[in-house]
Amino acid sequence: MSPVSDEGLKGIVMAFDFDSVISPRAAAAANKWAGYPPFHFVGGNIDEQTLPVDELAAAVDRVIRREGHSMAKYGLEDGPMGYLPLRQFTAEKLKAYAGMDVSADEVLITTGSLQALDLVNELLLEAGDVVVLEAANYNGTLTRLQRLDVEYIGVELDDGGMRMDHLRDVMSKLAGQGRRPKFIYTIPTIQNPTGTILNRDRRLEMLDVAREFEVPIFEDDCYADLTWDQKRPEAIQALDADNRVLYCGTFSKTIAPALRVGYLVAPWQVMQHVLPLKTDAGSGALEQMVLAEYLPHHFDDHVTELVGILKKKCDAMAEALDENFGAAAEYSPPDGGIYMWVTLPKSVDTRELAVAAARQGVAINPGPEWTVHGEENRHRMRLCFGHPTLENIRDGVAKLADICHQEFGVPRRSGNVERT
Amino acid sequence: MSPVSDEGLKGIVMAFDFDSVISPRAAAAANKWAGYPPFHFVGGNIDEQTLPVDELAAAVDRVIRREGHSMAKYGLEDGPMGYLPLRQFTAEKLKAYAGMDVSADEVLITTGSLQALDLVNELLLEAGDVVVLEAANYNGTLTRLQRLDVEYIGVELDDGGMRMDHLRDVMSKLAGQGRRPKFIYTIPTIQNPTGTILNRDRRLEMLDVAREFEVPIFEDDCYADLTWDQKRPEAIQALDADNRVLYCGTFSKTIAPALRVGYLVAPWQVMQHVLPLKTDAGSGALEQMVLAEYLPHHFDDHVTELVGILKKKCDAMAEALDENFGAAAEYSPPDGGIYMWVTLPKSVDTRELAVAAARQGVAINPGPEWTVHGEENRHRMRLCFGHPTLENIRDGVAKLADICHQEFGVPRRSGNVERT
Repeated sequence: MSPVSDEGLKGIVMAFDFDSVISPRAAAAANKWAGYPPFHFVGGNIDEQTLPVDELAAAVDRVIRREGHSMAKYGLEDGPMGYLPLRQFTAEKLKAYAGMDVSADEVLITTGSLQALDLVNELLLEAGDVVVLEAANYNGTLTRLQRLDVEYIGVELDDGGMRMDHLRDVMSKLAGQGRRPKFIYTIPTIQNPTGTILNRDRRLEMLDVAREFEVPIFEDDCYADLTWDQKRPEAIQALDADNRVLYCGTFSKTIAPALRVGYLVAPWQVMQHVLPLKTDAGSGALEQMVLAEYLPHHFDDHVTELVGILKKKCDAMAEALDENFGAAAEYSPPDGGIYMWVTLPKSVDTRELAVAAARQGVAINPGPEWTVHGEENRHRMRLCFGHPTLENIRDGVAKLADICHQEFGVPRRSGNVERT
Repeated sequence: MSPVSDEGLKGIVMAFDFDSVISPRAAAAANKWAGYPPFHFVGGNIDEQTLPVDELAAAVDRVIRREGHSMAKYGLEDGPMGYLPLRQFTAEKLKAYAGMDVSADEVLITTGSLQALDLVNELLLEAGDVVVLEAANYNGTLTRLQRLDVEYIGVELDDGGMRMDHLRDVMSKLAGQGRRPKFIYTIPTIQNPTGTILNRDRRLEMLDVAREFEVPIFEDDCYADLTWDQKRPEAIQALDADNRVLYCGTFSKTIAPALRVGYLVAPWQVMQHVLPLKTDAGSGALEQMVLAEYLPHHFDDHVTELVGILKKKCDAMAEALDENFGAAAEYSPPDGGIYMWVTLPKSVDTRELAVAAARQGVAINPGPEWTVHGEENRHRMRLCFGHPTLENIRDGVAKLADICHQEFGVPRRSGNVERT
């Protein structure tokens, strides 16, 4: 790397060995980026064609010419909570869609909702703590808790989301051991990966359980705008009578994942301790400004259009699964969102399937990575349909069925054709 | 917060007490944002009027209409290292300005250079480790190390930056105790807060010391583009023959602090372990895209213009200090950048001065927060001149002198006028 000529050879021979200083906690090394595979059924990406490029361009042009000079300051004029017009829009949106009665002063703009997870985790969790959550869950949440040496206990799901009877069991058992979870983490609206929606009765019951066992709830609502009918139950936060719910959401799933803009809603008792942990000198201003300029005029219409195409993609994936896997692939159609949770026969190990499929250009999420009880879910997988085109979904699922047949003899039949 | 009516009173009375679950490691609570004070001499902000609003607006319009659809994917097309055109420009800039021979594949775009600090710290440091750094230093670095329970040992500075004789002493003493620092952290080009530049000879000597004691160097070059003559010594990274230097920089100080775009340069041996720690699903795409579109055509001219006005502000602050504090304020004119490190008579405690000044609308950084040996530096302060106008600098420094006189009887005289 260095241009110092007469040291060149010595440089290569004597290169400093960073392995001697890298923390033993470091994760496995990354591979160099090789680009996206032809069939990319992983990652929380969304449809490209509906991304409102012209309207965003117009919005950013207006806002940058009007207020761009304020970017000479970290955090703009509005301080560490984020750009005020975006916090105001977020508060209004949460009121209109989720029934939440919050003011802009309770909304912290974060660099994606992932930063909201990190901030809440850092504030509340210590090694050895316990968190209770849905047994099938977002991989990013599970790996975060693993890295913090926090134990998580899974609550079973059915087609209505987290089972409240099992939640009560889990909490009672923990209480019997003298353990109080730091919080219940839940994705109640378009659960990841199951795509379920928790109804109002279960939400109220979750609050009852939380009250009984004196724990807070961390509600991750990052897919909640993507229900097929654009309706949703009131947020748990909205039903909460005693300020025990922390809440996060995002604009990544409705506008653009590559724009890193999420939000955390928390009472000031919590927020005043979150802010000192947000040591990033503010979230990106331009991304906040363009959203604040674009959203008030376009959010509803854009989400309607986006959800329409996502539903078509979901249907295409369901059809492709039926056609290519037949009865070998079981799934409950999701209530919205961008992924499908698929159960294959127990003879299939999706970790091995993922490796074989990757070699042939098909990326999938193996079930064990998205569940608390990994081994029990080795025959499940998550397939994301948000980004690929309808044609790509059809072709990719067909290819995946071929690969699965080659590797595991499953599916045996495809449509009316016996495979050999 | 909740609208549930018949639960309202109970809600208030029974509100969940988050203090029972907040980690004992939590920092002191933040205050609610009260807006910027009239005289804001803190924070790494830059000049508003030179911020190239029209050119950025034109750039963002072009790039978003051309490639905006790619924002439907996390990380765009280019994977976790960041937007390739920006990595390419960064590599070219580092070659042209700092003599660094790096390719785009060794440049990771980060969410501000602060994320580069966090990533390197997380990868290399554990509680109980030691880091060696300049004795006067960036507060954000010191507080990060404190939070990680990492000990830091300060090396004295003179007008030429870190003193190599003292660095050697410190390293020898540590070696005598059987301790090897995890790295030497240095801001060699426009040091924060002293504004000094380490010359080439000292850079080579630092590499010799690092080689002798077998430690890596972490070079933080975030102000390096703001030297008054727009020249600078080759980066330590460029002079390094054996790949022991990690390097970070930023576009916050040259384009806009509120755009959160920095970069980390590291050999792949390190980068492959950094990437799994960057769990933010990519840095903000729009900010990367607009910079990549704007910088190749405008960087040189814009920085020339910016540095011109910063130099005028620096001169204005020097004049205002001379005029209002006279001999009571000592400082070495910085070699570039946006702040001045000022020494007052030992009777002044700048922590108390900062409190009194804040009450009257003047914000300053007390010396103890920017130094390893806080108590010894209680009569020093950092004054930032990047953002305030020339008039605001003159008025604010005059006001600060008044306040300092009221509180400490210093300065005794102002210009030719004896104060009473």
